[in-house]
Amino acid sequence: MLTKASSLSRLVGELKKLPGVGERTALRLAFHLLKSPQNLTTLAEALLEVRAKVRTCSTCFAITEDDPCTICSGRRDTGTICVVENSQDLMALERSNAYHGVYHVLEGAISPLAGVGPDALRISELLERIHRGGVNEVVIATNFSVEGEATALYLAKLLKSVNIKVSRLAHGIPLGSDIEFVDAATVQWALQGRNEL
Amino acid sequence: MLTKASSLSRLVGELKKLPGVGERTALRLAFHLLKSPQNLTTLAEALLEVRAKVRTCSTCFAITEDDPCTICSGRRDTGTICVVENSQDLMALERSNAYHGVYHVLEGAISPLAGVGPDALRISELLERIHRGGVNEVVIATNFSVEGEATALYLAKLLKSVNIKVSRLAHGIPLGSDIEFVDAATVQWALQGRNEL
Repeated sequence: MLTKASSLSRLVGELKKLPGVGERTALRLAFHLLKSPQNLTTLAEALLEVRAKVRTCSTCFAITEDDPCTICSGRRDTGTICVVENSQDLMALERSNAYHGVYHVLEGAISPLAGVGPDALRISELLERIHRGGVNEVVIATNFSVEGEATALYLAKLLKSVNIKVSRLAHGIPLGSDIEFVDAATVQWALQGRNEL
Repeated sequence: MLTKASSLSRLVGELKKLPGVGERTALRLAFHLLKSPQNLTTLAEALLEVRAKVRTCSTCFAITEDDPCTICSGRRDTGTICVVENSQDLMALERSNAYHGVYHVLEGAISPLAGVGPDALRISELLERIHRGGVNEVVIATNFSVEGEATALYLAKLLKSVNIKVSRLAHGIPLGSDIEFVDAATVQWALQGRNEL
């Protein structure tokens, strides 16, 4: 049997660092990988490749392999900047195929409880981009959490001084959902933002 | 943003091969790893180390780094062989600290539906060990599933020809459980196997 200091125990220890993975899951994953040694190698290689290749775009701070990223260097409307908290949110917006501007990743949201102030975010870099000119609109797409809303308000206030249109993603009833089960605050937003047909 | 063929997509693809990990979880794990590049490297190294070092013991077929394994080469009662389906089961028995003999890992269980016959298991190697002599008892600790029970019955029949004691782990009420909620078959086993106090 394997001793405590063995390579398998080390692998289990590393897997346990992943979110939502405890001792039992880590052990199960490790034994699964052991059954197909080829997967051990390809996973290790994929990890090292990501470590070597993935960086953040020096313009928008999205996760990328090329700098500038494919969005910043692509044929996009550079007059519109969509501000998101992280690259995962950016990917969700891209999946919608409804946005043709560029992005700016804040790398977080203002959270006094976690000690994250505006200076910890990529806000100065956003202002720099705007001051360079050519930007007509900033779409704030931070999350609708306390931290995301606080960040949105902070940005809106900050951008008021610059003569620029600032918008926020619309609140409302999600597609396919039953109004009966939607929370009251969302229904309130949906009513206030109702559109004429 | 990352293109389809990027290293991050490849990593997500590799993570998706793990049991219980879908597209969303894989993406979440990948982004978690990206946040701490040091973990990317240590996980990759742990994987490669396991690939390089971990093998099966040539005597008992348990997963090990040394051959023979620490159990086969340790001060254990080699007259008792406990037969298990896999190394995970072996580790569970070791955690009990109640067994002092050696093991034999079958590397599976008889499963006609999955096309696994007795020849696919390490049964001939077990018989060889017994024929070499010095074995007094074989404790069958295959799982109490259909496949595990079939394997246990097959082994018991096979070992009848050799003059050897064959035993099976006891059925009964698990420790700390409420008899009210234990299934009828288990209660039946517990009654039949009742011990005098």
